Amino acid sequence: MNDAAAPQGREGIRREGIRHGGDLTQAARLFPEAPAPWIDLSTGINPWPYPLPALAPAAWTALPTRGALDALLAAAAGAYGAPGPDSLVAAPGSELLIQTLPRLRPPGEVAIVGPTYGDHARAWAAGGHRVQGVATPDGAPGTTDVLVVCNPNNPDGRTWSPTDLLDRAADLAARGGWLVVDEAYADLDPGRSLCGHAGRPGLIILRSFGKFFGLGGLRLGFILAPAPLLDAVRAGLGSWAVSGPALAVGTAALADLEWQAGARRRLAGAADALDAVVRGAGVPIVGGTALYRLLDAGDARHLWRHLAQCGVWTRPFPEHPGREGWLRLGLPPDPDAMDRLAGALASFVRP
Amino acid sequence: MNDAAAPQGREGIRREGIRHGGDLTQAARLFPEAPAPWIDLSTGINPWPYPLPALAPAAWTALPTRGALDALLAAAAGAYGAPGPDSLVAAPGSELLIQTLPRLRPPGEVAIVGPTYGDHARAWAAGGHRVQGVATPDGAPGTTDVLVVCNPNNPDGRTWSPTDLLDRAADLAARGGWLVVDEAYADLDPGRSLCGHAGRPGLIILRSFGKFFGLGGLRLGFILAPAPLLDAVRAGLGSWAVSGPALAVGTAALADLEWQAGARRRLAGAADALDAVVRGAGVPIVGGTALYRLLDAGDARHLWRHLAQCGVWTRPFPEHPGREGWLRLGLPPDPDAMDRLAGALASFVRP
Repeated sequence: MNDAAAPQGREGIRREGIRHGGDLTQAARLFPEAPAPWIDLSTGINPWPYPLPALAPAAWTALPTRGALDALLAAAAGAYGAPGPDSLVAAPGSELLIQTLPRLRPPGEVAIVGPTYGDHARAWAAGGHRVQGVATPDGAPGTTDVLVVCNPNNPDGRTWSPTDLLDRAADLAARGGWLVVDEAYADLDPGRSLCGHAGRPGLIILRSFGKFFGLGGLRLGFILAPAPLLDAVRAGLGSWAVSGPALAVGTAALADLEWQAGARRRLAGAADALDAVVRGAGVPIVGGTALYRLLDAGDARHLWRHLAQCGVWTRPFPEHPGREGWLRLGLPPDPDAMDRLAGALASFVRP
Repeated sequence: MNDAAAPQGREGIRREGIRHGGDLTQAARLFPEAPAPWIDLSTGINPWPYPLPALAPAAWTALPTRGALDALLAAAAGAYGAPGPDSLVAAPGSELLIQTLPRLRPPGEVAIVGPTYGDHARAWAAGGHRVQGVATPDGAPGTTDVLVVCNPNNPDGRTWSPTDLLDRAADLAARGGWLVVDEAYADLDPGRSLCGHAGRPGLIILRSFGKFFGLGGLRLGFILAPAPLLDAVRAGLGSWAVSGPALAVGTAALADLEWQAGARRRLAGAADALDAVVRGAGVPIVGGTALYRLLDAGDARHLWRHLAQCGVWTRPFPEHPGREGWLRLGLPPDPDAMDRLAGALASFVRP
């Protein structure tokens, strides 16, 4: 790897293939001169993680047991308001579930409400489906077999009415279709979740554990769907797909409703504080959730590069035509990080 | 679950669907009166695990980085003698890779050298392939598209010559076929591994991390194969399939060649000690590896039930017709466990 020739700006973004935030390996390669330590604002992961419980040695050494999995599913059903533990299947991250769904039905027409998290479109296209982006759930054509909606949406935070989504699921189910609702950020606003309706025909819900609980390295996610589809997902994952540490930590965290309520309050306050700093620097905020804020930075490559040169790693969206102004910022983890962000924003000179 | 009516004996084995060892939830349900604690000899997992290194908080909190994955692949390539880190793809357990392979080629004829680990046959059959068992690699019919061999084999420990297997891979590759070599227990005898030949046409190798390193809960496995197949596996797994703790612990353990050499010696000695106890009780040993020993117990359901009633959980094979005598024992983890096993064997009265 030739660091001396590290590409920067939009070419850098494109040439390096930045598809996701969260990889400081890439940041350090592109901007070797940036001041350490890097402040990683490139993801929507809670910077105040659920405190790790003490793990029994068997969580590491033994094959995960059915009993441990049952406990996790019961805790998840409780946290998500699902009808019961049989409503869910656990996986090593919701990303793997995104890759799995397109294999479980014959190629068809897929409409994805966007711009949104890019792996949905990539996975369905790789599975041989015809994929098109639509601006709203109602904008999907009548021939749609699968409609994918992120609720709330990443990165702009748009939300959709649960009642409307249930209607769309019923429409799709009536002709053998699916509504896939990615609720990766729904922990922030549980009232908007469809998990209470899990099991309805045609309704598929994905949940991500790592974002809200601040444990992205743990790899844990869930799918809620009608039983035959859950059976197919379970069979494809094989035995023991979820690690012993993920079973133990996930069970403790999902059962801890008090921590979850506190985290919602803390995140909401932190998002407000971030907004104040960004707006104070004259940059408008155009969306987001309490785990990330979406800025309109004009031509975002300039602010992205400037922040990176200051050691602040953020997420631009050059892959979305017409959204070149978007820049997504996660929550600064502490006052020092907020100060460094504020200083970097203040020293930015628009070209 | 009605514990009072817990079925026992072969009916219990069948009715409960015991497909794998390692789940004491099941043991306790079937034999609620057994003395605690259970001694779990039902798997082939090293009872002396690699000592967990201190984990950086980011291993839990952050999304796994490309740099962490590269370090793991380099350590794995070194430990396995693979040509380089590009020869491997990491997954959350080799079990998931077993489920993945049948989806990556059109339905065809699959020959599996057995009796062996049952999930190979289940996964290929579920993928629409025609599956037959064969007694040896040379016994596969000329129409075979995919030949699956476990080397060494589980549970009987049979091994196959690397040279012969490479010849079979070349034969199969010449007509678009695959040789799948499951090396889940090859760490015990690295000289027999084909990993040094990874990348050859038609040759697919699976490695399991958890068994030899005694960390079955971590979920980590590898596939070595020609580059286009690795690309397909990688795409199906999506980003971040391997957890941060698995990346960190796996990297440390796979790079620790001295620990690995010591573990080989210790396991060989422990297997000899187990053999002495079993033979002293008059039960013949018919195969195995240094991580498990295979007994011929006549009609194994009797000895299996007796040991379970003594709190010793072992693995019978009622699913293999003609092998009803087989009983597999893992290594007792300490002298107390060995004593309890010896006592249980001594008190067995053949019906």
